[in-house]
Amino acid sequence: MMQLSPPCNNKTMKIAKTITELKTCLEEIGKDKTIGFVPTMGYLHDGHLSLINEAQSHNDVTVVSIFVNPTQFAPGEDLDAYPRDFDQDSLLAEAAGTDLLFFPDPGDIYPAGASTFVEVEGESTRKLCGQSRPTHFKGVTTVVNILFNLIQPTRAYFGQKDAQQVVVIKKMIRDLHLPVQLVVCPIVREADGLALSSRNVFLNPEQRNQALVLSQSLTAAKALYRAGEGRVKILKDQIISHISNMPLAVIDYVDILDFKTLADIENITSPALVAVAVRFGSTRLIDNIILD
Amino acid sequence: MMQLSPPCNNKTMKIAKTITELKTCLEEIGKDKTIGFVPTMGYLHDGHLSLINEAQSHNDVTVVSIFVNPTQFAPGEDLDAYPRDFDQDSLLAEAAGTDLLFFPDPGDIYPAGASTFVEVEGESTRKLCGQSRPTHFKGVTTVVNILFNLIQPTRAYFGQKDAQQVVVIKKMIRDLHLPVQLVVCPIVREADGLALSSRNVFLNPEQRNQALVLSQSLTAAKALYRAGEGRVKILKDQIISHISNMPLAVIDYVDILDFKTLADIENITSPALVAVAVRFGSTRLIDNIILD
Repeated sequence: MMQLSPPCNNKTMKIAKTITELKTCLEEIGKDKTIGFVPTMGYLHDGHLSLINEAQSHNDVTVVSIFVNPTQFAPGEDLDAYPRDFDQDSLLAEAAGTDLLFFPDPGDIYPAGASTFVEVEGESTRKLCGQSRPTHFKGVTTVVNILFNLIQPTRAYFGQKDAQQVVVIKKMIRDLHLPVQLVVCPIVREADGLALSSRNVFLNPEQRNQALVLSQSLTAAKALYRAGEGRVKILKDQIISHISNMPLAVIDYVDILDFKTLADIENITSPALVAVAVRFGSTRLIDNIILD
Repeated sequence: MMQLSPPCNNKTMKIAKTITELKTCLEEIGKDKTIGFVPTMGYLHDGHLSLINEAQSHNDVTVVSIFVNPTQFAPGEDLDAYPRDFDQDSLLAEAAGTDLLFFPDPGDIYPAGASTFVEVEGESTRKLCGQSRPTHFKGVTTVVNILFNLIQPTRAYFGQKDAQQVVVIKKMIRDLHLPVQLVVCPIVREADGLALSSRNVFLNPEQRNQALVLSQSLTAAKALYRAGEGRVKILKDQIISHISNMPLAVIDYVDILDFKTLADIENITSPALVAVAVRFGSTRLIDNIILD
């Protein structure tokens, strides 16, 4: 496969496929450098690349991980089907300015008999995706904690696309006093509004077209809110009826919650998260918008 | 109160009573120093001081924490009654060569609304103390994780006295890839064999005398094992009958388990942990010995 020309800073990206290789690379980097870390599940798109760009601009060194984390998938979810393309990811990561790409095996992250978990209990993990995926965030917080422990980044970059994940990780960092600064980057969208997702690749043309209803229903809700409607029930009902117009769309949830705590609210009086999850066939898409 | 003369290395111990003060002190220390960390619940005795001495001999800087961690006590346990004497602890810690003493408030370690926990699931936390104190180790692993995140030590020192705690923390460090080296130090005993414990202060003279049965029954079991008896049931029965001779002793547990995993065993073919917990009045004492 052809190598892309070296990125702007004229460096070559290193690839660590084991924890031992990672540690060697990190030792070479040294403890005095700031490290920006972008954890991903691979199949990189412009959303990921915006995180890498952001990390690259504010840190001495940018580390990206690609790890399709088994513990955040429940049995029957799409762990095996999750799209993977390491060669393509590797080229994209290098072109975006990644210094070190960490691509471990599950057996390296979770050694035989591993049974230690980091769990954010309470409202923030029970709502939204936590309802249809009750063990999901326990897997997310555990693997993010492990990756933080291994890489010891100065800053970690997450996309607002996974809004609930951001709330949960922010809470984990605060509750456990993790020595890392969380940086949240805006959702990156296609020109027509569809939020970028590695799972978009599974949509057939008709599903792809109807999937626009996620961003469109959120934009319409924002317009209604801006026009003075602050009642959560009215806003939710409009989104639900909007999405229900699409025959292929099956709603997983539509909810409007306190942006910081994900507590239930009846009226929007402080920043609120409007979040939707919708299935098209076996593909589950999420999107969200903040009203403040 | 009179200050002890400065310890051998002629330095003065700093005391941080908040996380902000701790961070200031750690920044002054800098990232290039090795840090030996001794987490305690205070009421320091020679067992703790042996840990501090060990930390002091192998690291540039020794940090000791005193924190009676509420999350490892269940309702009805002795959280409020746990003995405390900060002034005395402070003198002892300084004399033993502590550079930085961290003495935070519970509200600093667990900010309002904190609900993130680190839990080692499975056998190692269900056996022994995990049976009579089912939420104990979840509190221990959570606070140790928090303290590690705050202090980022090179090495952490724990006493073999809390044998199960050592197994659980070793597993947490391994499973979560925590960047710290665990150092386990031997049990320190009174001349007559009683393992040092902050809770020994609660024993009345008669209880104190009968409490010798813990170490004596373990020593007797070791002798029987050395004489060729490898059957767990026989060894356990001897310990139980030994302890039962003491009218004030109420056995919480007597068990012999695989030393590394705390799995059940029938015969001793690899290193085994013999652990006992016995109540005298409202005071619960533990002790253990390794057979290998």
